[in-house]
Amino acid sequence: MNKRKIINDPLYGFISITSDLIFDIIETPVFQRLRRINQMGLADFVYPGALHTRFHHALGAMHLMGRTLDNLRDKGHSISAEEYEAALLAILLHDIGHGPFSHSLEQILLPGTSHEELSVLLMQQLNEQFDGALDMTLQMFTGQYQRPFFHQLIASQLDVDRLDYLNRDSFFTGVSEGTIGAERIIKLLDLADDHLVVEEKGVYSVEHFLNARRLMYWQVYLHKTGLAADIMLAAIMQRARKLLAAGSLTEPEHLLYFLVAERSGSSPDNEWLARFSQLDDHDIWAALKQWQHHEDRILAYLCRSFLHRRLFKISLTNQPDEQAYNHHKQRLLTEGVSNEELPYLLHTGEISNAAYIHTSKTIKMLRKNGEVVNIDEATDLPNIKAMSRIVRKHYLCWAKHIDFT
Amino acid sequence: MNKRKIINDPLYGFISITSDLIFDIIETPVFQRLRRINQMGLADFVYPGALHTRFHHALGAMHLMGRTLDNLRDKGHSISAEEYEAALLAILLHDIGHGPFSHSLEQILLPGTSHEELSVLLMQQLNEQFDGALDMTLQMFTGQYQRPFFHQLIASQLDVDRLDYLNRDSFFTGVSEGTIGAERIIKLLDLADDHLVVEEKGVYSVEHFLNARRLMYWQVYLHKTGLAADIMLAAIMQRARKLLAAGSLTEPEHLLYFLVAERSGSSPDNEWLARFSQLDDHDIWAALKQWQHHEDRILAYLCRSFLHRRLFKISLTNQPDEQAYNHHKQRLLTEGVSNEELPYLLHTGEISNAAYIHTSKTIKMLRKNGEVVNIDEATDLPNIKAMSRIVRKHYLCWAKHIDFT
Amino acid sequence: MNKRKIINDPLYGFISITSDLIFDIIETPVFQRLRRINQMGLADFVYPGALHTRFHHALGAMHLMGRTLDNLRDKGHSISAEEYEAALLAILLHDIGHGPFSHSLEQILLPGTSHEELSVLLMQQLNEQFDGALDMTLQMFTGQYQRPFFHQLIASQLDVDRLDYLNRDSFFTGVSEGTIGAERIIKLLDLADDHLVVEEKGVYSVEHFLNARRLMYWQVYLHKTGLAADIMLAAIMQRARKLLAAGSLTEPEHLLYFLVAERSGSSPDNEWLARFSQLDDHDIWAALKQWQHHEDRILAYLCRSFLHRRLFKISLTNQPDEQAYNHHKQRLLTEGVSNEELPYLLHTGEISNAAYIHTSKTIKMLRKNGEVVNIDEATDLPNIKAMSRIVRKHYLCWAKHIDFT
Amino acid sequence: MNKRKIINDPLYGFISITSDLIFDIIETPVFQRLRRINQMGLADFVYPGALHTRFHHALGAMHLMGRTLDNLRDKGHSISAEEYEAALLAILLHDIGHGPFSHSLEQILLPGTSHEELSVLLMQQLNEQFDGALDMTLQMFTGQYQRPFFHQLIASQLDVDRLDYLNRDSFFTGVSEGTIGAERIIKLLDLADDHLVVEEKGVYSVEHFLNARRLMYWQVYLHKTGLAADIMLAAIMQRARKLLAAGSLTEPEHLLYFLVAERSGSSPDNEWLARFSQLDDHDIWAALKQWQHHEDRILAYLCRSFLHRRLFKISLTNQPDEQAYNHHKQRLLTEGVSNEELPYLLHTGEISNAAYIHTSKTIKMLRKNGEVVNIDEATDLPNIKAMSRIVRKHYLCWAKHIDFT
Repeated sequence: MNKRKIINDPLYGFISITSDLIFDIIETPVFQRLRRINQMGLADFVYPGALHTRFHHALGAMHLMGRTLDNLRDKGHSISAEEYEAALLAILLHDIGHGPFSHSLEQILLPGTSHEELSVLLMQQLNEQFDGALDMTLQMFTGQYQRPFFHQLIASQLDVDRLDYLNRDSFFTGVSEGTIGAERIIKLLDLADDHLVVEEKGVYSVEHFLNARRLMYWQVYLHKTGLAADIMLAAIMQRARKLLAAGSLTEPEHLLYFLVAERSGSSPDNEWLARFSQLDDHDIWAALKQWQHHEDRILAYLCRSFLHRRLFKISLTNQPDEQAYNHHKQRLLTEGVSNEELPYLLHTGEISNAAYIHTSKTIKMLRKNGEVVNIDEATDLPNIKAMSRIVRKHYLCWAKHIDFT
Repeated sequence: MNKRKIINDPLYGFISITSDLIFDIIETPVFQRLRRINQMGLADFVYPGALHTRFHHALGAMHLMGRTLDNLRDKGHSISAEEYEAALLAILLHDIGHGPFSHSLEQILLPGTSHEELSVLLMQQLNEQFDGALDMTLQMFTGQYQRPFFHQLIASQLDVDRLDYLNRDSFFTGVSEGTIGAERIIKLLDLADDHLVVEEKGVYSVEHFLNARRLMYWQVYLHKTGLAADIMLAAIMQRARKLLAAGSLTEPEHLLYFLVAERSGSSPDNEWLARFSQLDDHDIWAALKQWQHHEDRILAYLCRSFLHRRLFKISLTNQPDEQAYNHHKQRLLTEGVSNEELPYLLHTGEISNAAYIHTSKTIKMLRKNGEVVNIDEATDLPNIKAMSRIVRKHYLCWAKHIDFT
Repeated sequence: MNKRKIINDPLYGFISITSDLIFDIIETPVFQRLRRINQMGLADFVYPGALHTRFHHALGAMHLMGRTLDNLRDKGHSISAEEYEAALLAILLHDIGHGPFSHSLEQILLPGTSHEELSVLLMQQLNEQFDGALDMTLQMFTGQYQRPFFHQLIASQLDVDRLDYLNRDSFFTGVSEGTIGAERIIKLLDLADDHLVVEEKGVYSVEHFLNARRLMYWQVYLHKTGLAADIMLAAIMQRARKLLAAGSLTEPEHLLYFLVAERSGSSPDNEWLARFSQLDDHDIWAALKQWQHHEDRILAYLCRSFLHRRLFKISLTNQPDEQAYNHHKQRLLTEGVSNEELPYLLHTGEISNAAYIHTSKTIKMLRKNGEVVNIDEATDLPNIKAMSRIVRKHYLCWAKHIDFT
Repeated sequence: MNKRKIINDPLYGFISITSDLIFDIIETPVFQRLRRINQMGLADFVYPGALHTRFHHALGAMHLMGRTLDNLRDKGHSISAEEYEAALLAILLHDIGHGPFSHSLEQILLPGTSHEELSVLLMQQLNEQFDGALDMTLQMFTGQYQRPFFHQLIASQLDVDRLDYLNRDSFFTGVSEGTIGAERIIKLLDLADDHLVVEEKGVYSVEHFLNARRLMYWQVYLHKTGLAADIMLAAIMQRARKLLAAGSLTEPEHLLYFLVAERSGSSPDNEWLARFSQLDDHDIWAALKQWQHHEDRILAYLCRSFLHRRLFKISLTNQPDEQAYNHHKQRLLTEGVSNEELPYLLHTGEISNAAYIHTSKTIKMLRKNGEVVNIDEATDLPNIKAMSRIVRKHYLCWAKHIDFT
């Protein structure tokens, strides 16, 4: 059987599967499951085209990894066939630990455990299944491989993960400002002492990339309507968790398993992992469709509203807006909401772009004279420093016109 | 509340909502449900980007309708504000009658009733709900409005439905050959005696459009892997129907409702419509995920295979291949399949591009001298005639390596 | 000095220069001259974006040749480094023999000699200059190399020349219908016994390619306004030739050299070649600007009209339209044009798409069973046969509103 | 005659000519001349696709003006038909005063006079020719019309001129990072008291626009190779000016007219304007081709080198590099260059992005509460302030390997 397939991709034209092992990994149920996990959570409520999946992103990132390694070889760097395949597999599997709606539910199904940790656990399972074929892949993914640039290409400020998702999210949302010159950046990557660096003349492209990322954060990833949808979905899960604890919610069993109170905070065991590997967006949607008829009026109301896209209203301010909070609290109580129900219908919290500014792994630039410097030390790049300021905003999110019928 | 929203669209940049009524229609649950119905059924098994929905297509077609009417006005044709809105609503709602996976299950959930008929029924319900605001919309949709070009823009060989879906499907699949010059075609549309015509100089664009459509048929819509997925899903539903009749399948109730034997063939009543309005892709996915653990080994096998993308194998031939059929029949029986189970694992049938060649509504061309002729009577267009030949192919579709565990 | 440059290209992103010899050839004056020769002659009179040059097309075709050879290597075919470079050079230089405005003046500056013949002569000069480094390149270009697919990639019905120019011309004109899936076609090319073949599943892409080419012929390359511009420029050159013979035109000398009567029909000698290698579009434009003030009223009128884009009018008919010819003849004579002047202001002739249907080198298809057939023998491809019908049209082209002031 | 044409444009699909007057203006020789003036000067030496002209840019900017005014009307602002046409004409003609190679020769052919001043003079001539039809156009262009937003759309930090040229230059160069979301920005423009403002939610798009512009400055407009070409062309003109003054250069007369010493610094009179209206890129190219054979070895050397793209070498530093200057001076003198010749072969100077930061006309933002503020006063926009820092660089530019043969 010929396993060297090519797959149509609207961004790159074609993605080639370059080895039998890669094909076999793609064919596993745990990877095929990524076909049913939306890359951007609930962003399609705002951007109707944003329906692409983790499956597609994983393939795209693998494609860019291949282009990057080809290019490094062209520049004279030695990369063995084994390293090449391992790097492609590492980026292919980097998001295998994502659950339903990607980030939207990440901290709800298993609080305290990140999707990266789950990726490692699932990659270890696959490694056993494939008799150790993923040993080097795991080393690269966890940063233990001796040549650091492989890990840097998988997870750093300028990794192929970001290169793919910025272009892909921009493409499917139609937010053209998020488009980055991925091909140019890849052509300008180089190695210095086995660390990833950018050639000096690529500095404007990197700045543009950072700026596009920042724009996507505020305009797309933290879009307030999308945020309201996330908060609503979280509220549904919290309500379900409470009803489960009270014994008044019993279905669907395979989803409720993840909402059992005691499980929260504990480490994922084999059964948890096995069940998690079966979970996808459809399980959530099916539950919402079922729960919209539940006798608990809060759960039913939230699910119905969510399905019909009657989302919470939301406001963002620089300081918490207590006056508005009190106003909506009074209004809701007046409309017949009980004190017990209130926390599910009125939410406050904070968002920030801090997540994207973890500065531990800065981008390095290679000067023409061979010197390696941090990119924000380059002259004439006021923006890069300016962009690294963390911005926080406070949100208030409320149900409007309560209608429990 | 400001209802004149703009929506990001990767194809057209922005889609504007141009009236309050249009906004209100989009907000109805029955329309929001289209967010959960894939435009291309199961095509994403082959083209992973093909995840766009009927919701997005409906908005896109509405956008093109607006551009077309703007252009006709620019050419001096009078179109009233009421007609304008009615035409936009008619194309917005033209696919409201689609059920889960669009065409893939169309003849399975209610054999004998087309999605167009269901669209009319659901539009009539909306019309009641909106106190007759859709009267003209319904007239246009059903071809009863006195100015025929409105209906022709909604449903003919060269309607805005096709203009949108060809571009959209081409965009999301990445099959660039399907891209058509929609804007140019729209600029070249005109009216002759209130019938839709194309200016003579647009003849090559129309030919290109027909050719792109033909290519999309064979390369995408009738792609053999997608066809195998459709056949597999149909087999699952047939098996479920049988188990339901035998009393050995009881869940999920809201889906099984559509598989009750007696309901097949009857007209949709109000309850049927109300339940149908709640149905979407997620109900099917959830059922498959549930049924993969069912005790009937055929149902479980089919669902498991489908979820893990272990699809049927398929071959296409010009004549039915009885030898191959017998070979696979023997093989399956040898592998332990019973005669009763066989029809769910081995399928034959016929496909053709006939669907796209129904010639009743041909494209008319307006010569410079004012004469209106059928486009295939224009000289130097050998292709258009050549393309109207109906091609039939026979398929054989089989389960490989049966593994019931 | 690092000669491995990358060049920005709006179609392909980046074009890499992959060897020092290629860099050195690009740096020669005779190649740099292609920067000053419009790829599409006078098409920018109709499509203002069509200003790309033979230089850019040559680089683009070289890029596609590289992609094609990379892909053939991936499929297991052996291609030596020397062959690889020779093939890139052959396509890089395939149009080196083009003169000002490419095809527009091809048969006027040296009647009877094609640009391909001139390409060979200039390549031979370069070969001497580079001490035989282009030996294999010349063999491939002239079809004498023992592995025929190299020549087929340079000059056949489905060569990389066409793949580049269709996409490039489509891109710069904005005629989106001419876009072809070059990357997909390249992925589907293969070799059978060292002859170029297309995989069976590529048949729709090839059909689409042929159709796009046909559309570009009628809508762009033979656009009637562009044709009128070509005829006008030819009329200018004919008038200049006559005035030169009569001794009443003496400048610019370096252009008039090519209009000396005796030179027409003879073979290009070294002096001719040396002067030709210096000629480009700017020489024509400069002459027109100078001649617009010439005392010969026909030459001045034609040049002035051309510069101000007051082009001839033109009509296309299936049969020669003698009545219209006589009408315009009488009109012009009435307006004061003399019988001697008439032929420069009133033109008839024939165009056809025959040029693109020379069937000697048909496209071969490789069936899955290993059989190689002509693509038009494949079933279900009525279009390909239909498209091979040669269409002829007759033109009548006339000056309107003569105004010699 | 139908003057409502549509023109293919690769960026916007089609550009419509919306009035007879606009058509007639486009048909004038002085406007048609823009077809022969490269938008980006000599940038095609670096980016071979950058061959688009002022003609195309003028049409594109007119198209965006139409879209902008349509959008302002949709938002309820009254714009009369006369204003609409005048605004389109003003932007159509805003660059009519550009001469050969746009900015590259701007300060050489008439030092002290900007192309904007020439645009006004030429628009006044057209206005006379069209009996005052451009009165309002001139008012808008010069900022005298009573509604300021028209002038702001023509010439401000966020005018349609910039929106078009950034997208167009990005498109034709292939520098994808320069692409801006022009359509989104246009949708977000509004008026406050007849001044142009941006809606608050457009703030990220504006920031992205400013960033793209900055990137284009450093990566494209001030690209050092393009800069070297500009310097070389200026050196040619300076040498020609000197030879003309010395009586040893006599042709081509119509170009030398502009190099007469006394003319420099004086105001353009009617003859000057008439001759200028005939000048385009081809006159320069033709002169270079002629002068490459001139007896003055410096002029011949510079022209030959320019034609064969053997450009000066160049270095950019933060401080003037006197050491390098002296090195090249000594080298050139050693190679036989005379002290008189030296200034044409060795150049120093300064570039900066100051041109694009003239802060007089800042971008105003409209908050949701109706308040109008400067955009750089908006919170969370560190970049906009950071970008307004003026950066200066010093260049050293020298001839390498002098070869006068």
